[in-house]
Amino acid sequence: MFFQVIDILGTIAFAISGVLVALEKRMDAFGVLIIAFVTAVGGGTLRDVMIGIHPVSWMTNMTYVYVIVASAVFAVLLRNKINYLRRSLFLFDTIGIGLYTVVGIETGIVAGLHPIICIALGTMTACFGGVLRDILCNEIPVIFRKEIYATACILGGLTYFLLRKFVADSNFIFVIAGLIVIIVRLLAVKLKISLPSLYKDKA
Amino acid sequence: MFFQVIDILGTIAFAISGVLVALEKRMDAFGVLIIAFVTAVGGGTLRDVMIGIHPVSWMTNMTYVYVIVASAVFAVLLRNKINYLRRSLFLFDTIGIGLYTVVGIETGIVAGLHPIICIALGTMTACFGGVLRDILCNEIPVIFRKEIYATACILGGLTYFLLRKFVADSNFIFVIAGLIVIIVRLLAVKLKISLPSLYKDKA
Amino acid sequence: MFFQVIDILGTIAFAISGVLVALEKRMDAFGVLIIAFVTAVGGGTLRDVMIGIHPVSWMTNMTYVYVIVASAVFAVLLRNKINYLRRSLFLFDTIGIGLYTVVGIETGIVAGLHPIICIALGTMTACFGGVLRDILCNEIPVIFRKEIYATACILGGLTYFLLRKFVADSNFIFVIAGLIVIIVRLLAVKLKISLPSLYKDKA
Repeated sequence: MFFQVIDILGTIAFAISGVLVALEKRMDAFGVLIIAFVTAVGGGTLRDVMIGIHPVSWMTNMTYVYVIVASAVFAVLLRNKINYLRRSLFLFDTIGIGLYTVVGIETGIVAGLHPIICIALGTMTACFGGVLRDILCNEIPVIFRKEIYATACILGGLTYFLLRKFVADSNFIFVIAGLIVIIVRLLAVKLKISLPSLYKDKA
Repeated sequence: MFFQVIDILGTIAFAISGVLVALEKRMDAFGVLIIAFVTAVGGGTLRDVMIGIHPVSWMTNMTYVYVIVASAVFAVLLRNKINYLRRSLFLFDTIGIGLYTVVGIETGIVAGLHPIICIALGTMTACFGGVLRDILCNEIPVIFRKEIYATACILGGLTYFLLRKFVADSNFIFVIAGLIVIIVRLLAVKLKISLPSLYKDKA
Repeated sequence: MFFQVIDILGTIAFAISGVLVALEKRMDAFGVLIIAFVTAVGGGTLRDVMIGIHPVSWMTNMTYVYVIVASAVFAVLLRNKINYLRRSLFLFDTIGIGLYTVVGIETGIVAGLHPIICIALGTMTACFGGVLRDILCNEIPVIFRKEIYATACILGGLTYFLLRKFVADSNFIFVIAGLIVIIVRLLAVKLKISLPSLYKDKA
């Protein structure tokens, strides 16, 4: 129940972030809806397709569909006031990636994959919705350029497998690993930390 | 037989629309061929991969391959005269999305999915070839911006499931739902209707 | 053993080509790593997903992961000196596509697909990592515009199936078809041959 609420909050945040980018690109209603959808379920879809889970998860759980459509309608109607909600949205989004990371990792474990691959799957689940959103909007994905986002997922994933060596309680591991993702991201944004561009002029 | 002819006409129209966009981007012969292919089979491929049909349909039916290659060669050779064919191409294309929408819906029904998901699959089958074409050509997908295209597919899909409640004859449902897609699109283009951009300046 | 070494050399070359493009786009460390990954395993992933091999190959073979991460770190550290290595990289890359083409073809044969589809799969395996790299970096894929790259793969594929009619020794076929890919590409670059753009001004 608790996890379901978080999952829905994360889906809402992802969908709305899609709407905001799509509106900036002056897309029509259909485009906005599709981008909301892709942002919210894109990461999980890619994960499922690569592992071989089909039909992909959101196709067999209508909750996602209803939540995404409602979020998109809501975001479009309130598009001029959504700035006041940015702080809440950022929080939902951050909680969402924390949850999605751990869900992705556990999907990989169930499929019997190596820990490194599981961490990659968790990061993919959390981040690739945003990557697909940016590709469809003809932008270089923002997470490749300036946000501590995937790095938070990777650190959460490492925590997950570290804890697993010492702790038996899987709920505890789930929560702590998710919290690490959330805390790293919050701190990074609070302290304005970002990964440096590796580009160096040949001076 | 009748449906096969329509299917081939749709494939031809999609392939040629790919060639035309690729030529504008000054691609070489290989690029043109690939874009023709992706435009024609991209939507169905995405649908098959997400549901778990593999190998994806076009890999086990050589007709598609031959039709697409022939269409691409034809379009390249006649590229300076193809403007005269725009009207026929538009008609083929519209018939194609009508057919593809219903094919996608029925694939979803066979997979036991919810009607809303089936409509999404139908729309995806009809529209995502064009989306992939535009991404490969580094454009924001045109259907997100200005055409009644997906909307026609969605209306056709709703018709499909509405009829299903009252009518038993599946061929009849197939044809009517496909016709709705075609008529909505023709009317929209004839009457110059398009979805408005939802973007509003904060004036 | 011999093929494994070639496979690793190819993976290294693909990963480094990803790093170089990502650095030019001023991506951060995470972005660079992802692009390296996608370039190296993207083609094979697409092939596996379309045929229905899952989990996709690189997820069950950690060698790829280690080689790609090591190559990316190496390329970033030596980024100002990598120009001296361009000739070796080009050679690795060319050997890599030769190998990947034949691996893709044989995957298709095992799946019982038509020779033309097998050649398409081989070409996809060799080329689509680069296509995905360019899409993620917001460029029109370079292979659609100016390089004899896919054409070499297609010629190698035709050779493969031609030889298969007359020769029984599958290792021999493998090597010769791969060599054709490599030789065609080397010759094309040496002699500065490229496919012409098909665009013609309506003069």
